[in-house]
Amino acid sequence: MSRRRILVVNPNSNEAVTRGLDEALRPLAFADGPEIVCRTLAEGPYGIESQADVDGVAMPLRRLVEAEDADAFVIACYSDPGLHVCREGTARPVFGIAECGVLTALARADRFGVIAIRQKSIRRHLRYLRQMGLMDRLAGERPLEMSVAQTASGEGTLDRMIAVGRELKEIDGAEAIVMGCAGMARHRRSLEEALGVPVIDPTQAAVTMALGAVALA
Amino acid sequence: MSRRRILVVNPNSNEAVTRGLDEALRPLAFADGPEIVCRTLAEGPYGIESQADVDGVAMPLRRLVEAEDADAFVIACYSDPGLHVCREGTARPVFGIAECGVLTALARADRFGVIAIRQKSIRRHLRYLRQMGLMDRLAGERPLEMSVAQTASGEGTLDRMIAVGRELKEIDGAEAIVMGCAGMARHRRSLEEALGVPVIDPTQAAVTMALGAVALA
Amino acid sequence: MSRRRILVVNPNSNEAVTRGLDEALRPLAFADGPEIVCRTLAEGPYGIESQADVDGVAMPLRRLVEAEDADAFVIACYSDPGLHVCREGTARPVFGIAECGVLTALARADRFGVIAIRQKSIRRHLRYLRQMGLMDRLAGERPLEMSVAQTASGEGTLDRMIAVGRELKEIDGAEAIVMGCAGMARHRRSLEEALGVPVIDPTQAAVTMALGAVALA
Amino acid sequence: MSRRRILVVNPNSNEAVTRGLDEALRPLAFADGPEIVCRTLAEGPYGIESQADVDGVAMPLRRLVEAEDADAFVIACYSDPGLHVCREGTARPVFGIAECGVLTALARADRFGVIAIRQKSIRRHLRYLRQMGLMDRLAGERPLEMSVAQTASGEGTLDRMIAVGRELKEIDGAEAIVMGCAGMARHRRSLEEALGVPVIDPTQAAVTMALGAVALA
Amino acid sequence: MSRRRILVVNPNSNEAVTRGLDEALRPLAFADGPEIVCRTLAEGPYGIESQADVDGVAMPLRRLVEAEDADAFVIACYSDPGLHVCREGTARPVFGIAECGVLTALARADRFGVIAIRQKSIRRHLRYLRQMGLMDRLAGERPLEMSVAQTASGEGTLDRMIAVGRELKEIDGAEAIVMGCAGMARHRRSLEEALGVPVIDPTQAAVTMALGAVALA
Amino acid sequence: MSRRRILVVNPNSNEAVTRGLDEALRPLAFADGPEIVCRTLAEGPYGIESQADVDGVAMPLRRLVEAEDADAFVIACYSDPGLHVCREGTARPVFGIAECGVLTALARADRFGVIAIRQKSIRRHLRYLRQMGLMDRLAGERPLEMSVAQTASGEGTLDRMIAVGRELKEIDGAEAIVMGCAGMARHRRSLEEALGVPVIDPTQAAVTMALGAVALA
Repeated sequence: MSRRRILVVNPNSNEAVTRGLDEALRPLAFADGPEIVCRTLAEGPYGIESQADVDGVAMPLRRLVEAEDADAFVIACYSDPGLHVCREGTARPVFGIAECGVLTALARADRFGVIAIRQKSIRRHLRYLRQMGLMDRLAGERPLEMSVAQTASGEGTLDRMIAVGRELKEIDGAEAIVMGCAGMARHRRSLEEALGVPVIDPTQAAVTMALGAVALA
Repeated sequence: MSRRRILVVNPNSNEAVTRGLDEALRPLAFADGPEIVCRTLAEGPYGIESQADVDGVAMPLRRLVEAEDADAFVIACYSDPGLHVCREGTARPVFGIAECGVLTALARADRFGVIAIRQKSIRRHLRYLRQMGLMDRLAGERPLEMSVAQTASGEGTLDRMIAVGRELKEIDGAEAIVMGCAGMARHRRSLEEALGVPVIDPTQAAVTMALGAVALA
Repeated sequence: MSRRRILVVNPNSNEAVTRGLDEALRPLAFADGPEIVCRTLAEGPYGIESQADVDGVAMPLRRLVEAEDADAFVIACYSDPGLHVCREGTARPVFGIAECGVLTALARADRFGVIAIRQKSIRRHLRYLRQMGLMDRLAGERPLEMSVAQTASGEGTLDRMIAVGRELKEIDGAEAIVMGCAGMARHRRSLEEALGVPVIDPTQAAVTMALGAVALA
Repeated sequence: MSRRRILVVNPNSNEAVTRGLDEALRPLAFADGPEIVCRTLAEGPYGIESQADVDGVAMPLRRLVEAEDADAFVIACYSDPGLHVCREGTARPVFGIAECGVLTALARADRFGVIAIRQKSIRRHLRYLRQMGLMDRLAGERPLEMSVAQTASGEGTLDRMIAVGRELKEIDGAEAIVMGCAGMARHRRSLEEALGVPVIDPTQAAVTMALGAVALA
Repeated sequence: MSRRRILVVNPNSNEAVTRGLDEALRPLAFADGPEIVCRTLAEGPYGIESQADVDGVAMPLRRLVEAEDADAFVIACYSDPGLHVCREGTARPVFGIAECGVLTALARADRFGVIAIRQKSIRRHLRYLRQMGLMDRLAGERPLEMSVAQTASGEGTLDRMIAVGRELKEIDGAEAIVMGCAGMARHRRSLEEALGVPVIDPTQAAVTMALGAVALA
Repeated sequence: MSRRRILVVNPNSNEAVTRGLDEALRPLAFADGPEIVCRTLAEGPYGIESQADVDGVAMPLRRLVEAEDADAFVIACYSDPGLHVCREGTARPVFGIAECGVLTALARADRFGVIAIRQKSIRRHLRYLRQMGLMDRLAGERPLEMSVAQTASGEGTLDRMIAVGRELKEIDGAEAIVMGCAGMARHRRSLEEALGVPVIDPTQAAVTMALGAVALA
């Protein structure tokens, strides 16, 4: 019997992000557990920032999910593009990282905060949280107001994340923090240490859930 | 460096339940992953059915959590007894299986149903769901109306679970099912197959989340 | 100055549905008011029934909205496909008929019911209602369980709508009814007469709102 | 057959307000559409500011609605006085401007803000929003803290509205603004232009809905 | 110093109801406690059944509250007519029996049920419960479908109340029952005994709260 | 027949707090009403500040409730420790002061604020308010940030309470204030006078409700 496989799809076409996912997920790749494969969506835009970016990858993701025979899929973008249409297209579990990031935070503490890249994505996130019926436990969401490029490479990213995380914790009352982007994972541990509350990387959270679903299937 | 360890505590004193947990969690024990240890709470009652049973194990659980040096704890009773007091007593993650069971169902489908052992525990579960702020996605909860002993040993348990699960799915609109008890795990796969929707064993769900937290720490 | 124009887009490619819209909207085409133009989306499927149908027309709708210079747009499908991505693409108002249908019902009575074509679309509608934050006033949603073809042509459609509407009113407590489909308009008046409560055709509701927005701009 | 008629009732006895309504509604009076008639409630107080003002006009409004034979009624005060008792007294549609203002904002954007005249009316508005079940989409409500007289005649009114509207948009996250008073209509267009988000005059919103109801009856 | 006084106003003009209140409240009239005086509103209709009945007594109640110098007021009708306008008119506490009945039930059990006189009043009650923000703990509301006259005098009233109460308890899950009318008090004890859960008479609940407010002032 | 009795249990072992309760409740001890007896829980910690303090007194309270034959019980700690387990152990009514304090505030005004002793207890209170389903009417909760000892004896306590109460009223919009601690009663009247809105002492509120339950039994 062949080894089971979790397919993590980066819906943007930035290979550096995919490599970052790969590295962030290594601790979850157990010798006798499912293989974790990260894939770049060829049709994706360079970054997913607008609603058009989100909606434009839904059908390409659906086709990918239908074409691949992984045991579980993870859509690695904090807007969960195409989540429902992908679920419709396969009997295998499909996980969205925004959903899993928030749900995992809720398993750790009562009220959660979210660090967003930019102010304008917060509106989309709030609408999505309302759809998920999870607003009652939101302490707050605050933006870094940095570009994706800056957060990926910039020196000051961690400092800025700590500053925003402290506001979420001290002003808004967050007891756990969700990093609202697929590309922040390498700062997770430092941020958690600085803030003293659980910090959740959403892709790690989703792959953890996928791992359980595949191992127990 | 010693191997990491997830301690799963069965708060009732029924060793057969603990052995059942042990078996149910084997698929999550990876060769190079954390050790998963199941433990019976010596001070626990034979079964946890009343509010006194729930509240009576809170402080014993707290003491156990303070005394043990596991990397994460799982409280394996669907009432999540002592969850907050245990969290207060340790810097390590503490997971409740009811919370994790429901949150994991929410990562798989929009609305979930719960199979309870008995009608009278549903009140307590509803109050807890309201505390968790997750009522908006509850499709319904329905009881087996069997004793814990019956569900553990009885022949007809699976049939009854399928019947109740069908009502949750077809009448209440549940798209995922949570098994509302720590002792139903061995029926999970058959039930999922019969119902055609994801079925979540709450202890497996909690240990999966603990696995992620420990692996990524 | 040229006459103002409301563009009503039927996202499925069934011209008969578009002609039905045209007829249903005639009472709102005032001599000195905006022109109401109904258009079939060339890229649309023959009917919009699945999530793939919904998500598949989002980007084609966006391109249409960007290409046309109407003063307001109405997306005439009860799943409001592409609503947010279309809004992002134009400064002109874009209305979704599901949203407008429900909001118009709320302007007439306290609790509303929805007549759906099929059971399986109810899940999508409920998720959308939760996103809209309007669940608190939902009395219930019930399906006709007829095919779109049947509802379009069938003799018994009105009878079935009356039966379902009565259940919504008498069992669920609905005080206004939303017809959960773009193709039921010709039965609106008869249904309202039979039920004795306001019955809202969602396309008419959306075009009414568009009419106001355009007239007052 | 005689021309259809929408009766807009100003529940205060200030004729200047009624004339303002008349002017604000002119764009909705189509040549072949329903006549829009604005009427001052003789029994009304000079302005509606207190709860006694609100409750004191309920029964006079009921009697007016029973006595007049309009095809639809609009109660033009942002507290929707007498709305339910008027509905009980006639089979014709009765619209409240607060309800319609908010519902129309919800058809344009995800979260709305309200500009109130005074702080003390905000409490009443919040209680009413809770009754309507629409709190989940409220971004915020902020007062001008001007008297009705000042807002009606004052030079600085628009400037103050823009300042308050900016706070609603930038601090509270409102994506559409409802003017929380029947007498602000003449500033709607300038305010919308200044803020760059839809601004809803509630009387115009209610008359638009009435127009649809009458045209489609 | 003169004895303190709680004024209980029966907003209908049926003196028999007022006498019934008087009797029901006797156990709360302590020798050294406030005097409890029941008064019939002269301007009230014979029974309060319609929205016009409710709204028609608001201003008469306001005038009464302004004219009398009681230390606290209780409005003894399960629609809480005029509650807010009365509060505006006096610095003394004003209690509504619907509000106090529900709040008192919530102090006794998690979820409550309401026995209404008639189906049609349930709509008004639900809208009011939503305004109070207390829907989350409502198990259900069911009607006796008897006239006020029947409930006042009829032999079978208690039997019917027990039957409806059992449905609320067993089908809807109510753990406490509110009697949704000012005229049912004499059945409270028998009903409580028959159902085995707390049964709240709303006027007694409101006068209890008034007693506390007056004694502690 | 012996005099009826309300047993008020102070779950901490600080006798000074118990004596304070005794004094605060004197106005509710009517000559021909139930006796009000305050009792210190021998097993209680000196103060209840942590979750362990709360959970540690649950079973001792249960045993006390089972052993005593009072006609009603009041648990006099603002975390309502052991409330549900005590209710399970007796057929007599058991009241929690947090629950009763909030419910009594809701009978007086639309939105309430809470004065907490310390910031860290606010998290527990918010979780409990969510469980009670009463968040929709919370204006805010703010801490004194004083120790229990300071609040009990300190000179500046009232001044600090007035300052915090003003923020709740003026910034958060609270129209009634709940004192979030069993030991603040002697400041209730002065605080109410200074703030101009109802101020609720939670123990007085609970004993008032107990008084009604016992008198009417």
